[in-house]
Amino acid sequence: MPKISKKGSQMPESPIRKLVPYAEIAKKKGNKVYHLNIGQPDIKTPQVALDAVKNANIEVLEYSHSAGFESYREKLSKYYKNQNIPIDTQNIIITTGGSEALLFALGSTMDVDDEIIIPEPFYANYNGFSVASGVKVVPVISSIETGFSLPPIEDFEKLITPRTKAILICNPGNPTGYLYSEEEINQLAQIVIKHDLFLIADEVYREFTYDGFKHYSVMNVKGLENHAIMIDSVSKRFSMCGARIGCIVSKNTEVMAAAMKFAQARLSPPTYAQIASEAALDTPQSYFDEVIEEYKERRDILIEELLKIEGVQVATPKGAFYCIAKLPIKSANDFAQWLLESYDLDGETVMVAPAAGFYSSPNVGLDEVRIAYVLKKEDLVKSVKILKEAIKVYNKI
Amino acid sequence: MPKISKKGSQMPESPIRKLVPYAEIAKKKGNKVYHLNIGQPDIKTPQVALDAVKNANIEVLEYSHSAGFESYREKLSKYYKNQNIPIDTQNIIITTGGSEALLFALGSTMDVDDEIIIPEPFYANYNGFSVASGVKVVPVISSIETGFSLPPIEDFEKLITPRTKAILICNPGNPTGYLYSEEEINQLAQIVIKHDLFLIADEVYREFTYDGFKHYSVMNVKGLENHAIMIDSVSKRFSMCGARIGCIVSKNTEVMAAAMKFAQARLSPPTYAQIASEAALDTPQSYFDEVIEEYKERRDILIEELLKIEGVQVATPKGAFYCIAKLPIKSANDFAQWLLESYDLDGETVMVAPAAGFYSSPNVGLDEVRIAYVLKKEDLVKSVKILKEAIKVYNKI
Repeated sequence: MPKISKKGSQMPESPIRKLVPYAEIAKKKGNKVYHLNIGQPDIKTPQVALDAVKNANIEVLEYSHSAGFESYREKLSKYYKNQNIPIDTQNIIITTGGSEALLFALGSTMDVDDEIIIPEPFYANYNGFSVASGVKVVPVISSIETGFSLPPIEDFEKLITPRTKAILICNPGNPTGYLYSEEEINQLAQIVIKHDLFLIADEVYREFTYDGFKHYSVMNVKGLENHAIMIDSVSKRFSMCGARIGCIVSKNTEVMAAAMKFAQARLSPPTYAQIASEAALDTPQSYFDEVIEEYKERRDILIEELLKIEGVQVATPKGAFYCIAKLPIKSANDFAQWLLESYDLDGETVMVAPAAGFYSSPNVGLDEVRIAYVLKKEDLVKSVKILKEAIKVYNKI
Repeated sequence: MPKISKKGSQMPESPIRKLVPYAEIAKKKGNKVYHLNIGQPDIKTPQVALDAVKNANIEVLEYSHSAGFESYREKLSKYYKNQNIPIDTQNIIITTGGSEALLFALGSTMDVDDEIIIPEPFYANYNGFSVASGVKVVPVISSIETGFSLPPIEDFEKLITPRTKAILICNPGNPTGYLYSEEEINQLAQIVIKHDLFLIADEVYREFTYDGFKHYSVMNVKGLENHAIMIDSVSKRFSMCGARIGCIVSKNTEVMAAAMKFAQARLSPPTYAQIASEAALDTPQSYFDEVIEEYKERRDILIEELLKIEGVQVATPKGAFYCIAKLPIKSANDFAQWLLESYDLDGETVMVAPAAGFYSSPNVGLDEVRIAYVLKKEDLVKSVKILKEAIKVYNKI
């Protein structure tokens, strides 16, 4: 029997997927499971996007341009400019989700055994894409103690080697909810310019910022044009995770030419989803105002309730819809599994994502979980109540 | 300025894309261009697929399962079984086009610098996916003289090294239209079993066979279960190229487990397109009968007309909708460019794909072009007439 590749065996399994069999056990026992573990929002997709697909007059479902519909790229450029982010049509290639944009970014800038520095905890799939691309992730630890703010510049510089090609950030962050300040982005810009690196910024949660904090894009930094690569997606912005539409954005023409060759090899991004995504740009501002307000309220209630649990530490997120909570337990992995397999409060339990899977360093974040506040407020309150009671029981076992 | 990756600079440009600027010149001159160069069929997408999307009742466009809708995989399994191909639901992962299925297959079976043997001429994007995966393509030449039949087993065995991990075929073939016989597939099976390799078969043109020839799938070979990986797609079958839905199929559970980790990293295939693809499986047989009859007539008229041109050699395709034609010219590249830039017959010209781009060996197929018969019969007749007159003029320059 032929053997699978080393790459195939090294591909990490998602920290959440490992728990799926246990969630099935919980469900088989008849327990209701509150999913705090996933970033699938319950928010409705804008009607204008859904209608555009319903009303599309298609006879032959054809390939689109490999860079995506030109009309969509033009409209997207206007959308960014309205947000004061100077991006032209030719700086954009439409991709199949932010996932493919990241694959193109890694493929265009990094060869096998090259190194990418990522502040951790980070979006777990960065590991998968790095393994798939043969790239080595070099983590720089950001800590819950400082609310996951940017690690000191010296920490980055210590890690830079001749093989370092890029720094990757997620801003606002999944799983931390941390929003980098303009000053922090400028610090990163200085490092990448000094060491001639790329700065890849996953900005898919750009609109989700709270408390008056404003997102500052890497595309706004003057002098960073040839270094900055932005990853974007419609998934969270328009609650269209299933569309699988994102884009890679850069003013570096060589990067875009290389990314275009990756884009051509896979022919085109999905046509229906592009129709929906283009139309979604007409979503009225009121939609976002309501959504942001809803997430803000959810965040507030989640953090308030979490902090009522003795021994819980949590960094208040300024953006996105996740937070990392440190629990008064030894192993979040074991706890998360136990919650599903062996615990219920009046027939209900919760599923959380153990945060260790978001760290690349071993034995870090073992007592932390990621919580996505994508559920209704009353469900969040119930969920935290379950967590609170569960911790008491669990620590007595 | 930071440098792009070697991989990014080595990614091949599609042999067709290079001609696009010249096609634009032709169009600017007011000339009509017949596109013999691309595999975008003009056939209508089945109404049942289009209607399913129109009628879908979506409120939140959610991620699907990373392996694709379970209902779709179940229905697909039945579809294969109806074609006497024994494939169970758990042998299938839905992908974003056949392209992603091939990327998952390469990623799951091959590491950097591993070798894959591919009979050439082959689908040009195999080069791109191989570069993206860090895999080395080892071509084995099949010749127009033998109608692109399977090269002798000895030719394969000469090329096998300790780094050889797989043989990749496209059956029926793009760009050759060649359909491997059951005997040829069995010969390939013997080689891969003897040398413990994978046999990856791109079978996206399975239904497009003519003259009573039947497609024989690698999934039908007994004893090959752990070696065979099938790539499939809805693009050509249902004229749904823009859907971007395909699948990777194997009975090798280790391969499927590895492919699943790649699938999880990119979350899910596109939801709308899965709705269309699942519904497309209800397309009545009459649709295919008409489409196959139409392609057969197109093929017949194309080959008949081509053979009227002095000095043209062409292998009659038994499947798919492409053929390779050897023209009485020195450089098909130069000729194809000249056709667009400098030639017209009564304001019309043709765009063909120089076949050199489908070979990985240098200086092979320089006088060959690939012709896709995806145009109406009368347009094919006109196109060949233009080619005929153009060759006369070109050879006098």
